[in-house]
Amino acid sequence: MTRSPSPQVLISEVGPRDGLQSVKATMPTADKLRWIDALAAAGLREIEVASFVPAQLLPQMADAAQVVRHALRHRGVRIMALVPNLRGAQAALQAGAQKLTLPVSASPAHSMANVRKTPEAMVDEVRAVLRLCKESAPGVPVEVGISTAFGCTLQGLVPEDEVLRLAVLLAETGVHEIGLSDTTGMANPAQVGRLFRALFREIGDLTGAAHMHNTRGLGLANCLAAYEAGVRTFDSSLAGLGGCPYAPGASGNVVTEDLVFIHLPKLIAAREALKAGLPGEPLYGMTPEAGLPKGWPGP
Amino acid sequence: MTRSPSPQVLISEVGPRDGLQSVKATMPTADKLRWIDALAAAGLREIEVASFVPAQLLPQMADAAQVVRHALRHRGVRIMALVPNLRGAQAALQAGAQKLTLPVSASPAHSMANVRKTPEAMVDEVRAVLRLCKESAPGVPVEVGISTAFGCTLQGLVPEDEVLRLAVLLAETGVHEIGLSDTTGMANPAQVGRLFRALFREIGDLTGAAHMHNTRGLGLANCLAAYEAGVRTFDSSLAGLGGCPYAPGASGNVVTEDLVFIHLPKLIAAREALKAGLPGEPLYGMTPEAGLPKGWPGP
Repeated sequence: MTRSPSPQVLISEVGPRDGLQSVKATMPTADKLRWIDALAAAGLREIEVASFVPAQLLPQMADAAQVVRHALRHRGVRIMALVPNLRGAQAALQAGAQKLTLPVSASPAHSMANVRKTPEAMVDEVRAVLRLCKESAPGVPVEVGISTAFGCTLQGLVPEDEVLRLAVLLAETGVHEIGLSDTTGMANPAQVGRLFRALFREIGDLTGAAHMHNTRGLGLANCLAAYEAGVRTFDSSLAGLGGCPYAPGASGNVVTEDLVFIHLPKLIAAREALKAGLPGEPLYGMTPEAGLPKGWPGP
Repeated sequence: MTRSPSPQVLISEVGPRDGLQSVKATMPTADKLRWIDALAAAGLREIEVASFVPAQLLPQMADAAQVVRHALRHRGVRIMALVPNLRGAQAALQAGAQKLTLPVSASPAHSMANVRKTPEAMVDEVRAVLRLCKESAPGVPVEVGISTAFGCTLQGLVPEDEVLRLAVLLAETGVHEIGLSDTTGMANPAQVGRLFRALFREIGDLTGAAHMHNTRGLGLANCLAAYEAGVRTFDSSLAGLGGCPYAPGASGNVVTEDLVFIHLPKLIAAREALKAGLPGEPLYGMTPEAGLPKGWPGP
């Protein structure tokens, strides 16, 4: 164990952003809002509700501002938005987003495909977003998720030193949290534990979320390895929706219903709201089918 | 980490036994043999090929002796058989089985449903099987898997003290290995780590395999927790087939193809042999669909 953190775990629901950007269909706005309401009702404390990217690139996210404004009614929930650049950050802050997250790829190939910038240019973008927040929204924390931290379907292996070098560079910008994303579903538990332990050594408490995909069934095992390395924030997606339009072969996120053993009946109700908005889309998750173990929780 | 074991991991393939006893169809003998040949070709070093139970109870296993005799041609593979009692052990040894495994339930309710005996009566049966092996097959080790060690769909929670008491009782019989089985798919990683660490404290190196199911998607995370507690033998099943006819609601085993990162092309070929023998049966596994991560294995 790298440090002795508080036992409190935060589940950051990314379905409305990572999930909806990865399916071909565009969920109607009214369905999105009902789904987000159901997620809030299930007790989730942080929800990434939208991505502020140009509508011609991701038409699924054209209603991002409206979605953020609606979601703000849930007082106990921190409403996050993904922003790829300064322009996105301006729009997200204007809509009222309470936390921003920027993706910075450790793989130059993925970085160019995903945001058309080198990793270094993205670090500059992070600096610009931090300046903007300082000026106009000082209470809004900025998180960076290092994408393709465990491998890239475009370039193959991603050297761990590269990931750590990028993390140190990002830490120097003053960003509030730096997480690691297995964007492509290539991570294994030994690698996850090793890299998060190294990250804690390099940047300490700036270490942020583990964002794991379930492409090879290892999503939960990777979360466990990250937990044992000291990570306490986990991204997951209701029904496992998710992927990356620019990471060929990557498939769904860790399934929220499989990751947590809380609020399960309400989480399953939230699946109904998702199903209503995306008819015909395959939903993942073992626990929703199996139900809770008999006698759980125990005495 | 409870002990510093050798890093060598043994994957014990249970599909031909646990998998085939759990599906309604009976796989034709010729298909079974081809499937077992493909598993051996994939490099598996231990295969549980059959269960020696009365054919009127499990018609899928009526050809157990023939299957064992055929499988013995694979010199580098240890051929195991499940036996519920002395009579089954006699038949298995006569067929040439090289290792026997007996299920002893920690839950009296499951024990009665599964083998119509109390756990204590099953310990007596283990003693009888050990005497038989000593007399007639001294080179054949006997393993016990403690079923429902992490919970029971019939009785609910299973006290950990009960599991440990049973393990100590079994250790005193002279049995060679004692593993823990999550027969019902109710285990979580914290529980798995805790119980295996306690088991190592009580019976040391007699601690055997982790037999995990994937009912709630936690199969691999539970294997990881067991590994970290010191376990080095893992039961898994090609395509995740498996369950227990007397554990309602339990579903498939940990998927061999998701557990290991070796011999993957040959393991996928073994799925074809399985598919040919069980047409229409749903097969599980994320890795067979996703393929190996790009650039794996690394430099």
